[in-house]
Amino acid sequence: MNNIPVKIAIMGTGMVGRAHAAKLAALGHAVMVGTGDPAATLAREEQDAMGNPPFAQWLKERPKVKLGTFAQAAEHGELVYDALSGQAAVKVLSACREALAGKVLVDIANPLDFSKGMPPTLSVCNTDSLGEQLQRALPESKVVKTFNTMNAYLQVDPEQLAGGDHAIFVCGNDAGAKERVTGILRAWYGWKNIVDLGDITAARGTEMLLPVWLRLWGALGTPMFNFKVVK
Amino acid sequence: MNNIPVKIAIMGTGMVGRAHAAKLAALGHAVMVGTGDPAATLAREEQDAMGNPPFAQWLKERPKVKLGTFAQAAEHGELVYDALSGQAAVKVLSACREALAGKVLVDIANPLDFSKGMPPTLSVCNTDSLGEQLQRALPESKVVKTFNTMNAYLQVDPEQLAGGDHAIFVCGNDAGAKERVTGILRAWYGWKNIVDLGDITAARGTEMLLPVWLRLWGALGTPMFNFKVVK
Repeated sequence: MNNIPVKIAIMGTGMVGRAHAAKLAALGHAVMVGTGDPAATLAREEQDAMGNPPFAQWLKERPKVKLGTFAQAAEHGELVYDALSGQAAVKVLSACREALAGKVLVDIANPLDFSKGMPPTLSVCNTDSLGEQLQRALPESKVVKTFNTMNAYLQVDPEQLAGGDHAIFVCGNDAGAKERVTGILRAWYGWKNIVDLGDITAARGTEMLLPVWLRLWGALGTPMFNFKVVK
Repeated sequence: MNNIPVKIAIMGTGMVGRAHAAKLAALGHAVMVGTGDPAATLAREEQDAMGNPPFAQWLKERPKVKLGTFAQAAEHGELVYDALSGQAAVKVLSACREALAGKVLVDIANPLDFSKGMPPTLSVCNTDSLGEQLQRALPESKVVKTFNTMNAYLQVDPEQLAGGDHAIFVCGNDAGAKERVTGILRAWYGWKNIVDLGDITAARGTEMLLPVWLRLWGALGTPMFNFKVVK
């Protein structure tokens, strides 16, 4: 699985998008990161709100990664990652609906709403989820929700914590897409404990983990932790 | 801590209330279970919706446990457990406000709403929680939210699963009450991994674990599992 380069689009230039783009490019895949306005993204000279360096600096150190518009990236990717903010995801990806038709969309985004201060609340939950909103907006795409319940660095390198003895969840409506993503989690990322929660409505459950995740971050003093399901 | 009998009220006659009442009575504590109408509770001859035997049968096998009205139990208990349904808890406990003043209220209830079919949704979440509703309704009581993230049998006997190597969360506004409940979790129940998430607003996080918990129950085929926080 590692030997066949895949054309991958990473939608979003934040910490999560960068972590996956770097990881997948290092594995030899053809990665294009999508952004709203590439020139503006490259022109930014400040760190972002999370203290990450300007994108141009990050990109310079990863010459194999390409940068394009959202539309160019959606066109490029045979496999597409949603690493956008939860508030932007539906709008940005809906605009790429045709280019995304038939493709697997790995949805990492969480519907965090920071507009009312800290800690963030969820802009959708309980009776719906961002994963479901995306699947409804992109009925020809195969949305698989995963990666959204731990820190970006752990997402791409689970073995750095307890030798990988902790869990990642997948859910989605398309069995083949879930199978492919599960294989990718295992072969490309080293995930061992992969729990299939069923159809995309299970995204309600994994997105609703965020509030306790945020409290645990505060209680433990580090974001480098994850849940294990003990049975 | 095990040697001094405590007067304990368990509000609620369901599976969770029974598990704790049996456990605490076996430890030698003076347990009174509270219900709306004791005569009606004792007259029931059918199993409940979860397949539990009639309460009278359960009680007969535990002669040390007493049954009373909610008001009698609230009066009796020096320590009070909320093992009510999430839909009943605020109303029932508010009616006992004076008797509960100054007492520690161990809140196990989850605001599950089964009225719209399965799986249940939450009747409050995201910007509020049942734990917070209770603390607002009972400002003179000390609400500590705990036990609400795993099956009742595991709540009272964590060591039966992986030797107890999994987590329980506590949160609440009163440091002394949390310290007391943490001591109880350890000494009476055998909990080892107790995570203090902070004030009662963290109940949003632990109650919002229910949707993923319910999906995991389906995926794993057993409710005898729990989360461990790996760090």
